[in-house]
Amino acid sequence: MAENVLSYQQLFDFSTAVLQKIGCSAADADLAIKVLLSADLRGIDSHGVARLSGYVRLWEAKRVNANPGINIIHQTPSTAVVDGDSGLGLVVAPKAMQIAIDKAKNVGTGWVSVQNSNHFGIAGYHAMMALEHDMIGIALTNASPLVAPTFSVERLLGTNPICVAIPAGNESPFVADLATTTAANGKLEILQRKNGVAPLGWIQDKNGKPSTNPHELKGGGALLPLGGDREHGSHKGYALGAVVDIFSAILSGANYGPWVPPFPAYVPMPDEQPGKGIGHFFGAMRIDAFRPASDFKKHMDKWIQRFRSAKTTEGQKKVIIPGDPEREMEAERMKNGIPLLPVVLDDLKYLSEKFGIDF
Amino acid sequence: MAENVLSYQQLFDFSTAVLQKIGCSAADADLAIKVLLSADLRGIDSHGVARLSGYVRLWEAKRVNANPGINIIHQTPSTAVVDGDSGLGLVVAPKAMQIAIDKAKNVGTGWVSVQNSNHFGIAGYHAMMALEHDMIGIALTNASPLVAPTFSVERLLGTNPICVAIPAGNESPFVADLATTTAANGKLEILQRKNGVAPLGWIQDKNGKPSTNPHELKGGGALLPLGGDREHGSHKGYALGAVVDIFSAILSGANYGPWVPPFPAYVPMPDEQPGKGIGHFFGAMRIDAFRPASDFKKHMDKWIQRFRSAKTTEGQKKVIIPGDPEREMEAERMKNGIPLLPVVLDDLKYLSEKFGIDF
Repeated sequence: MAENVLSYQQLFDFSTAVLQKIGCSAADADLAIKVLLSADLRGIDSHGVARLSGYVRLWEAKRVNANPGINIIHQTPSTAVVDGDSGLGLVVAPKAMQIAIDKAKNVGTGWVSVQNSNHFGIAGYHAMMALEHDMIGIALTNASPLVAPTFSVERLLGTNPICVAIPAGNESPFVADLATTTAANGKLEILQRKNGVAPLGWIQDKNGKPSTNPHELKGGGALLPLGGDREHGSHKGYALGAVVDIFSAILSGANYGPWVPPFPAYVPMPDEQPGKGIGHFFGAMRIDAFRPASDFKKHMDKWIQRFRSAKTTEGQKKVIIPGDPEREMEAERMKNGIPLLPVVLDDLKYLSEKFGIDF
Repeated sequence: MAENVLSYQQLFDFSTAVLQKIGCSAADADLAIKVLLSADLRGIDSHGVARLSGYVRLWEAKRVNANPGINIIHQTPSTAVVDGDSGLGLVVAPKAMQIAIDKAKNVGTGWVSVQNSNHFGIAGYHAMMALEHDMIGIALTNASPLVAPTFSVERLLGTNPICVAIPAGNESPFVADLATTTAANGKLEILQRKNGVAPLGWIQDKNGKPSTNPHELKGGGALLPLGGDREHGSHKGYALGAVVDIFSAILSGANYGPWVPPFPAYVPMPDEQPGKGIGHFFGAMRIDAFRPASDFKKHMDKWIQRFRSAKTTEGQKKVIIPGDPEREMEAERMKNGIPLLPVVLDDLKYLSEKFGIDF
């Protein structure tokens, strides 16, 4: 492997050791790193091991509790509100999703809103937990404000992703995992490193005017909701991001809108905290609560095959089924290793020295 | 009132009489027209009384059953699949949504997928049924294929709307009701009448190339998913429209993708029918299945007030809360009447003569 390419196992062993050093149990560290590295495997590098030092800094700032007592604080047969006790979202989220799955086993569906959590990695990991149970999985989370609603100069929403994972039969599952913005923040970071030009419709400047400068966010600019501008439906992206915020945080009692705590530990907390931590929302629907799973999967296969074989626009090989690119990347990186940017390698070396863990 | 403006009551009396002439019971006719006219009141003219003659033509083509036996064909405590028995979606949908609400009363949430239905008017009506019960309401439906997924030349999805209605306290409810396309078909129809120019990102031509000609759909072109093109996230709009299709039709056993029956009775049915009729999906979540409704509403009010009072971009008066424009339109039209286009008035006169109903 090239110098900057590490195997999954290397990254797993190192990263779990780091989390144990900050006080996580072995089981929690394994779970958290499984979630974290699923981002690297699936090619969503911005949400993977690149954030490991960020989580450590949140723990140093006493914003992460390494040994949370994760509790259900209210429930009905199909719902629960979970208090994450300031735990790593990487641990809180899969445990909350498991509660949704267990409820779905009993009454057909389960819906869990979570307060007092932290960043949970990629939504896809949690939603996909449902697949092996022949369930549809849903995962939403709010995040610190980077996005300006339509007509707003102010950043009031996070990139608030929606993930829906749906089992198929012979075909691979359908996994839609999308930020409710035109472009994910990770794509903007790539342009920032290159000093590139962002397409119009991705960002606005601090005065709310359209901009193509990828550095605009540091100067008070904002990401734009999916749609980009009013004429192209940005009010729809804004509405979807708002729904994610409300389901994740107002149903649970977490912070919402402009009051969601920032991920970087050095960024000051908002002046006000109307809730606790950040919020997530999970759903699980048992397929056979609607119809026999075998019938459903047969038709999912037909749906997928029809879409994938559609006549394409010029220069395109096929219509992509949501989840295809990430699954292909996962197979490739599990086999050939995960390439890391120099800045990420430096971060890991810093953690290696700090905690005395071989790297 | 001007000649082309009719009061809600005039339209209600006339339209219910028409539905009774095709054999609907008085109760079903009242329900259907309440749903239908909610579109006219809320300013979504493309989905209102303009479609009344279309529904009659579907009945003439024996595609609508005026006296459906609407049945639950499978259920669990939190889910049901409903067979609409080819009834008007305007009748089937509110009855299915009521089942979701009743299940939410019992176990916290209710989720109903519907097969064998027809066009259900605006999604907003059904989702908003939840509000008076202090529940969040969700309504989705698939529709006949007008939309090309990213990289597809073929039309494989409908405009597949998502509506989420969320109660507030002193503030009016949050009601997001959005087609998963850049532009709703109704907006394109306005441009067609004016021979106007569509913004890039709304449509493509029959070869899959971006187009600004609003008549392109008649020549085999397609509407584009929210996002418009790949660079602006059209794969996200496509994924959301796909989720709506799958929840509405593959969970229920309705037709999906390119096989959804067309609304105009003169358009031939697709060659193949993998399911029955068109499909819908409804959800109801009791607020107090998560936290006390009074707490939730207090925070919703705070959310709404914060967003509405955000600093705006140049030339804009305020940040709009989803549902604001439609609610204002409803108050205005309930008071001052509903303006109709000449072509819609002609349609109603045709129905008046056909059925011998005063107009």
